[in-house]
Amino acid sequence: MTERPFVFINSAMSADGKISTKERKQVRISGRKDFDRMDSLRASSDAIMVGIGTVLADDPSLTVKSQGRKLERKQAGLEENPARIVVDSKARTPLDADILIKGEGMRIVLVSRSAPADRIEKLREKATVVCAGDDEVDLAAAMGKLKAMGMKRLMVEGGATLNWGMLSAGLVDEIYTFIGNLVIGGRTAPTFVDGDGFPEKEILKLDLLGAERMDEGILCRWKVLPEP
Amino acid sequence: MTERPFVFINSAMSADGKISTKERKQVRISGRKDFDRMDSLRASSDAIMVGIGTVLADDPSLTVKSQGRKLERKQAGLEENPARIVVDSKARTPLDADILIKGEGMRIVLVSRSAPADRIEKLREKATVVCAGDDEVDLAAAMGKLKAMGMKRLMVEGGATLNWGMLSAGLVDEIYTFIGNLVIGGRTAPTFVDGDGFPEKEILKLDLLGAERMDEGILCRWKVLPEP
Repeated sequence: MTERPFVFINSAMSADGKISTKERKQVRISGRKDFDRMDSLRASSDAIMVGIGTVLADDPSLTVKSQGRKLERKQAGLEENPARIVVDSKARTPLDADILIKGEGMRIVLVSRSAPADRIEKLREKATVVCAGDDEVDLAAAMGKLKAMGMKRLMVEGGATLNWGMLSAGLVDEIYTFIGNLVIGGRTAPTFVDGDGFPEKEILKLDLLGAERMDEGILCRWKVLPEP
Repeated sequence: MTERPFVFINSAMSADGKISTKERKQVRISGRKDFDRMDSLRASSDAIMVGIGTVLADDPSLTVKSQGRKLERKQAGLEENPARIVVDSKARTPLDADILIKGEGMRIVLVSRSAPADRIEKLREKATVVCAGDDEVDLAAAMGKLKAMGMKRLMVEGGATLNWGMLSAGLVDEIYTFIGNLVIGGRTAPTFVDGDGFPEKEILKLDLLGAERMDEGILCRWKVLPEP
């Protein structure tokens, strides 16, 4: 097994497991306390990773918001923000995406060998481009490269497809799910984990490390158990 | 507004909101304590309702399992099992479905006016057939009829489509969700609430009445808030 960073997913979902509406409209699911907890997790990480679908739908900056935490990072000799990573097999990240232009810190775009050369060239002006995999990003290989770049603690912030890719490849150690006080519904609305789904015999087992009420919902912390 | 029973949904889902695999294979999500809690809820209800999809996929009997609870019901002058109801617009319930043949108690099949007459005739030998709605069962009208039949407390046990139908029609008072220690994943796996999904402005708000660790997961009790 290749060495990889410690990887955890952080996600907020509705009481029915949805992370947005069927139109991929982001919805406010958690509250102030959960937001602050997420910011603290970001500040404690070496890198924050999202999928290209999330970049295209939500255009997040993924920066640390608290001034105090940014200062602490600086005082520790780090940049204000952890490295921000997009998993982007075809190099579709827009050059004006917030993740590329907002806040200081390293940007990494993970692409596959099928990404157009001209797109890669343009992205190289704004980010470190790392290639792994033929048609799609080989996530296991990419984790090895990130570890070799010095990343020990990686936070995954979705979306549904990247969460599936990481979990189904056995690359996740822990999961935080905040369950909010709403029902979004919908056969086609993105859920916390989409993708192909596990067949009956391969369903992923978790261990509940903790659960607490927060804002108007519940925060759960799960450990991902290795396959038996 | 028509009078209706007090309605609550009980459901077990994975940590990513799924109630079965994409092949609709039922998966053991909760454990012994949650199963016993569900049995107690059943015994306390006047009727238990499921959708035809659940009958066709899982063939549940929906009977009360505990001998003690069955006895208590008898001593209170009730039948061992609450009335069991299938929402079945086209009258597709198989005549040998467990819900029709296992255990004592009333059976009701809710059909629409589009159900074939010969199917209705056959079902009438095994169940009370109640008609409401033209193409599909009109759930609000059906609730009125159930109330008129004396049903005060109705437990809904899924699946994803019936949960959506009841919630989107504003016919649900409370929800119990047990969140189990597994990830099922899958874009097409049934979730706790499927159907069309709410548009952004109409997302259903809940109030968290309680949350407790149970078996290897968490049991949440939610109150459905009226539209503002």
